[in-house]
Amino acid sequence: MTMDLATWLDLQNLYSDYALALDAGDLDRWPGFFTEDCLYTLQSRENFDRGLPLCTLRFESRGMLMDRVYGVKDTIYHDPYHQRHVVGAPRVLAVGDDGIRSEAGYVVLRTKRDAMAEILSTGRYLDRIVKTDEGLRFAERQVIFDNDLIPNSIIAPI
Amino acid sequence: MTMDLATWLDLQNLYSDYALALDAGDLDRWPGFFTEDCLYTLQSRENFDRGLPLCTLRFESRGMLMDRVYGVKDTIYHDPYHQRHVVGAPRVLAVGDDGIRSEAGYVVLRTKRDAMAEILSTGRYLDRIVKTDEGLRFAERQVIFDNDLIPNSIIAPI
Amino acid sequence: MTMDLATWLDLQNLYSDYALALDAGDLDRWPGFFTEDCLYTLQSRENFDRGLPLCTLRFESRGMLMDRVYGVKDTIYHDPYHQRHVVGAPRVLAVGDDGIRSEAGYVVLRTKRDAMAEILSTGRYLDRIVKTDEGLRFAERQVIFDNDLIPNSIIAPI
Repeated sequence: MTMDLATWLDLQNLYSDYALALDAGDLDRWPGFFTEDCLYTLQSRENFDRGLPLCTLRFESRGMLMDRVYGVKDTIYHDPYHQRHVVGAPRVLAVGDDGIRSEAGYVVLRTKRDAMAEILSTGRYLDRIVKTDEGLRFAERQVIFDNDLIPNSIIAPI
Repeated sequence: MTMDLATWLDLQNLYSDYALALDAGDLDRWPGFFTEDCLYTLQSRENFDRGLPLCTLRFESRGMLMDRVYGVKDTIYHDPYHQRHVVGAPRVLAVGDDGIRSEAGYVVLRTKRDAMAEILSTGRYLDRIVKTDEGLRFAERQVIFDNDLIPNSIIAPI
Repeated sequence: MTMDLATWLDLQNLYSDYALALDAGDLDRWPGFFTEDCLYTLQSRENFDRGLPLCTLRFESRGMLMDRVYGVKDTIYHDPYHQRHVVGAPRVLAVGDDGIRSEAGYVVLRTKRDAMAEILSTGRYLDRIVKTDEGLRFAERQVIFDNDLIPNSIIAPI
């Protein structure tokens, strides 16, 4: 796999599309951003930096992502809220046979009914992205959040 | 109209230029980002998602934008503050005879004198952009904010 | 110096790389983003807009940046925290013999141990960037923050 301008824009678009789909509450689209045997983790920076395995969320296939979507939509009882991702431009770390490795900083704001927006999470995405017949997809997306504390719970994916 | 790399960068630049002009307090430049018969709305996500017409602000021509600028600068009495937009990369939804349809997530921070910055608004832009002799311009810019509550008032445009 | 698509992406990458290196706490990389005889300032918008000289930080060479890194890492006693920059796409203001002049809006979030993320600083970068043998580098980076108040101190660079 090589990096050219068109691929960079595809990469940028994957990041934007992912963020805006989640912010629209369009959870059913979420697993489709990943490959079949993907890895998605949501982990504190404290644990990531120490190489510790514990994650807040860890899904090891697209099927597990679909299960999470089912959980969020039909099982978990929680106060409704909107999310808003603002994500920096992705920075390409490496391009090789196993895809593009890239990272980007993010902030996710949460807005509950009749309340002001507040910071839900900040951190970075650390990704491995591969080219598939349907376009670029996440083979790995590690979400590493700066704040050890999570206000209440993380319900929708970051 | 077709989408190529150069057009994508023009689009990205329009978004950045718009945000930075407003953040500089350069309100006189604001109407110039729009076509003569543009539509600019600022609407809560709650109303937008239900298809309800009520907007916090609704302007249906460049002339109305100019009138708003006059109001902000010379009529409305308010506590002065600075704005800071941080806007995600635009995502192109469609390209056709009527222009580019695109969206982008945003957060706007407000800073008053002798106070810390706070979140004024988060949401997304939903736009229709056309090519004019002066470059890309907004034929429609719908600002859809996530938070139902507005802290005090929206004075300057988002 | 001319602006083409490849240069624009190099510019975008410089901005991202800078932000992510700082957020990773990788301060030793910081001086390397600048030219040998660079200028780095951190200044309130209030002073910048009035043309006043007083800056919160002002460094006039890469050697002074290295001295600051030494100070941050080995001298200043402070509560540890993580930073997270989210930076808008750069907007090119001018391209000439003295390099690229560009600006970008930013928000920097600060997260302390066992605490929620909070807004540390918002503002814009105003830059002059030159092409060197090692790629694009900052000849000048002026950080102009909107908020007059700084919560506690600025330790790590913005």
